Amino acid sequence: MLSRIENNQLVDLVVEEVKRVLFRTSSGISTSGYSPIPLGVSNRHIHLTQATFHKLFGPDAEFEEMRPLYQPGEFASNHTVSVVGPKLRNIPSIRILGPLRNYDQVEVSMTDAIFLGINPPVANSGTLDEAAPLTLIGPKGSVYLEKCAIIASRHVHMTNSDAANYGLKDGDFCKVRIGGNKGTTYENVLVRTNDSWKLQIHLDTDDANAANIINETHVEFVGKM
Amino acid sequence: MLSRIENNQLVDLVVEEVKRVLFRTSSGISTSGYSPIPLGVSNRHIHLTQATFHKLFGPDAEFEEMRPLYQPGEFASNHTVSVVGPKLRNIPSIRILGPLRNYDQVEVSMTDAIFLGINPPVANSGTLDEAAPLTLIGPKGSVYLEKCAIIASRHVHMTNSDAANYGLKDGDFCKVRIGGNKGTTYENVLVRTNDSWKLQIHLDTDDANAANIINETHVEFVGKM
Repeated sequence: MLSRIENNQLVDLVVEEVKRVLFRTSSGISTSGYSPIPLGVSNRHIHLTQATFHKLFGPDAEFEEMRPLYQPGEFASNHTVSVVGPKLRNIPSIRILGPLRNYDQVEVSMTDAIFLGINPPVANSGTLDEAAPLTLIGPKGSVYLEKCAIIASRHVHMTNSDAANYGLKDGDFCKVRIGGNKGTTYENVLVRTNDSWKLQIHLDTDDANAANIINETHVEFVGKM
Repeated sequence: MLSRIENNQLVDLVVEEVKRVLFRTSSGISTSGYSPIPLGVSNRHIHLTQATFHKLFGPDAEFEEMRPLYQPGEFASNHTVSVVGPKLRNIPSIRILGPLRNYDQVEVSMTDAIFLGINPPVANSGTLDEAAPLTLIGPKGSVYLEKCAIIASRHVHMTNSDAANYGLKDGDFCKVRIGGNKGTTYENVLVRTNDSWKLQIHLDTDDANAANIINETHVEFVGKM
């Protein structure tokens, strides 16, 4: 016989399962039955600390927003820097995203990494133990950052409620797919949850270009890994 | 009752099926049970006619082999050209592959296409009806080729016997996979058979970089599409 608490848990489980089934059948687009996930293609970009920002742009520079990004609070700034690696070739005008953070990080594609001559790890944002070195050049100075460059892990931003709808939770990995003449399935997409986030998957430009993405705005959810 | 011809056909079918089963079980690497396929990553490259070669390198130039490629008879030549698209930016030193052909073709990745400012189709080699325009510049001249640039379709070179081992035939499409922290599955890989070819799949640099390929020399065969 079930106790009251067990009854409540059972009700919760049934409600969750019903929501999940309703959610799965509400979309006719994905072969897995789940709703497609909005896609954001991340071009190379930079996060800086306030100290590094001032080294590159001068002590009196103000960090200015150019336009908001899709995730609440995130924005593209008015500022770009040039980046040089050990091959001494530069990628000019990599945009700094805001707000400023407590670490310096340059997120590049593998194509960029080969061009620059670095071998960055595939890593989650903020995990810089194995990150590769680059020199950043701004209008008022330059810095050599010994551990700054990563290839960002594929990841998806979700609320906890979205995650439950996909049968996922924070820290899980999932698989997604883009169709077309270069149809591609992407594994090891890290699930990150925060109830202020909008549902969006981030793939880098190599991932997007491999699938010849032109007008796709969504990916198909294949399943949990 | 079976006629003699039907008996022979039956023997052939049984032999083929036994070979197929033996082949499938001889490899412990691929999750599909099939042997992995050797991988060749195709960087941007050019095929030219003799006439275009002479326009770019002069009427007396000789087309010289630098080193053989993996497929018998194919080679990297000693010659490179610079390529410019409508954004007026150039990619210097794209290598011409030999032998010379009866059409001019520039095979680029989508990353290259975005850099150059063109929108080439994903197409099979030699299918240039929808190809994009580029200017090619050599040491003795330049040419504007109105239909030359494509993103080469994913394809795999096989003998007919290899194809049979994978349960495939010329013109089929298959799916392959590369594992790792950016594990990726590639669809719509065109099967091309010729009994002089060595077994090899060709993916472009965007495909390879999406999967963060560093030391992989083979892909896993997932199955026929």
